Amino acid sequence: MSEPPASRPVEHAVSTAGPVHVVGSGLLGASIGLALARAGVEVTLEDASPAAAALARDVGAGQLGPGRDARVVVVAVPPDVAADVVVTTLREHPDAVVTDVASVKAVVLGEVEAAARDGRIASGDLARYVGSHPMAGRERSGAAAADPDLFAGRPWVVVPHDGVDAAAVLTIRTLAVDLGATPIQLGAREHDQAVAAVSHVPQVVASVLAARLLDAPETALALAGQGLRDTTRIAASDPRLWAAILVGNAGPVADLLAAARADLAGLEEALRGAAEHGPLNPGAMAAATDVVHRGNVGVSRIPGKHGGVSRSYADVTVLVPDRPGQLGRLFVDVGELGVNVEDFAMEHAPRQKVGLATISVLPDAADRLTDGLHGRGWRVVGS
Amino acid sequence: MSEPPASRPVEHAVSTAGPVHVVGSGLLGASIGLALARAGVEVTLEDASPAAAALARDVGAGQLGPGRDARVVVVAVPPDVAADVVVTTLREHPDAVVTDVASVKAVVLGEVEAAARDGRIASGDLARYVGSHPMAGRERSGAAAADPDLFAGRPWVVVPHDGVDAAAVLTIRTLAVDLGATPIQLGAREHDQAVAAVSHVPQVVASVLAARLLDAPETALALAGQGLRDTTRIAASDPRLWAAILVGNAGPVADLLAAARADLAGLEEALRGAAEHGPLNPGAMAAATDVVHRGNVGVSRIPGKHGGVSRSYADVTVLVPDRPGQLGRLFVDVGELGVNVEDFAMEHAPRQKVGLATISVLPDAADRLTDGLHGRGWRVVGS
Repeated sequence: MSEPPASRPVEHAVSTAGPVHVVGSGLLGASIGLALARAGVEVTLEDASPAAAALARDVGAGQLGPGRDARVVVVAVPPDVAADVVVTTLREHPDAVVTDVASVKAVVLGEVEAAARDGRIASGDLARYVGSHPMAGRERSGAAAADPDLFAGRPWVVVPHDGVDAAAVLTIRTLAVDLGATPIQLGAREHDQAVAAVSHVPQVVASVLAARLLDAPETALALAGQGLRDTTRIAASDPRLWAAILVGNAGPVADLLAAARADLAGLEEALRGAAEHGPLNPGAMAAATDVVHRGNVGVSRIPGKHGGVSRSYADVTVLVPDRPGQLGRLFVDVGELGVNVEDFAMEHAPRQKVGLATISVLPDAADRLTDGLHGRGWRVVGS
Repeated sequence: MSEPPASRPVEHAVSTAGPVHVVGSGLLGASIGLALARAGVEVTLEDASPAAAALARDVGAGQLGPGRDARVVVVAVPPDVAADVVVTTLREHPDAVVTDVASVKAVVLGEVEAAARDGRIASGDLARYVGSHPMAGRERSGAAAADPDLFAGRPWVVVPHDGVDAAAVLTIRTLAVDLGATPIQLGAREHDQAVAAVSHVPQVVASVLAARLLDAPETALALAGQGLRDTTRIAASDPRLWAAILVGNAGPVADLLAAARADLAGLEEALRGAAEHGPLNPGAMAAATDVVHRGNVGVSRIPGKHGGVSRSYADVTVLVPDRPGQLGRLFVDVGELGVNVEDFAMEHAPRQKVGLATISVLPDAADRLTDGLHGRGWRVVGS
């Protein structure tokens, strides 16, 4: 391959004018530092924990220091202390634009606005604050897991408010773009309701579903398939961080939990009737059908691969024996066939010695891929 | 590649002695027919719909006919009619072992046993019936989606009962093995409770979660990430089939829904307090932490890749520009590096032009893969 793949972009100049100061050098703060430092922006770091700050410096996320001449300050501390730190930062950095990256916006904005009302900061200070929220992150945490590309291709919500300065909003939008993200402007309540639906309630629901396995016997767990794995994957999240997020978005989350409970209660009542009087008990089939049907409609609203334009791909599924080298050999064969691969998924199951690889291609390439793999000895499912 | 990959197994002789008769030639029945026919077993098919039967025959799943001399009959009809068809089949095939493959076992077994009690069948007939349940299937349905490898590597639950003949149980266990599955013997209630926890309640919960998106604005959906997609993927299931399954397993499902509702109610109450009195309202953080923590423990009980022995792999994540040929080029490069790939996952996000490919390898191969891909021009995340 003489031409380097385009996944190594030419290092383009960023627009964010430094220095940038980062308060809180965990996963998000250190990742921001790494990305900016890589782009040649001067970054300073501080953290309540000297050890955490030193670690972030050591991974290359910036230099330790108070960042007195910073033009932008990113407050990347846990959501329960974000507002306090924003207020302190606005006072200690009278010329900087200040953003926080907490997962909840209304409660943070509310506390910062309260500080302006009671005089702890001036209205001119409030104008320099623009809350934001990069929709990025991993199960891992801390600076050791920091990654300059954490934000690449992800949305970054920017939250203006009544007293904000337009130039400050532009500064934070620009920062997001420089970090590879797509800025999306939303009001604080709009943001909180949105993340309640697409992030916070899914977390709660996954956790509650996984908790049903606490009492399940081993034989039940042996039957686990991809459906269970998908619905409970995020149940492995960090309890402390998520508790702070959930109580910080308590109203919108509680409202959606109430609606979910109502759906479950209706179905449960219909099923109790079926359990007592038989599956054809009046209303049982209708209630169950309705629950699944409404879910069909809901899930169809999630944007496809390119934000709403969901293309149709053809799936070619191949059996992959679970032995060393097999998956790599499949990659070689697929690559040599020269078919453009749009997507790829692997499926495993417990105690099994074979996996299923699903290769998504444009429909008119499916036959060529199927024939090509078949000719190379692969068992292509359905052919 | 001079040596064919081992994913094309030598066609091994099956132990199931035919003929085998399949009643109901939808996805499961036609897949069973295809697999047996491929192994040289004589298969006959019938279906209440002549068109469905003809389609199954046309895809190669067997010959149309009553299968009078069948030694094994597989009843593959919807769960709400499975028991009736089993009873009829036992009477019309007095020498065959009869199994059904419905997703719910106790209600089917109960109705078949009732038929023995009231004399519609004899106890000798009941002894030839062995309920079973292949844990396999796709969102697609019907014989057009039939696939002889549908059961490969999957569990197949076999359900003995008090009046069963041991030889009949062995016949069905053998059938499962011949179809590439792993037989697991469970009692009917044990099966129903197990699938309620690992399959039926996850379906309900995914549907109820997806229904929360019905009223979500477009901007909210634009923030959707992998967590939402994973937790709602199975919400795309078929409502009619799933309604029949849920009402057929009504008791166990209702019990788990009640437990889930109780968890949600407890959290909702704590969050209402936080919404009214602030995030630090007594009890709010504890309640939220507890929900997520219990989910941590529950999800950790799901078996890893090889049934309980969860190995640790190292993940190497690569940015893949969303342009034709890039993913294929990655496959070529990975293959050429000769690193054994244990698992592979792709992550996309709406309206983004880049994806993230996560390649799982044994930990001591991670550096070699990272360096190798980096040297070939790939942007490896975190390096």
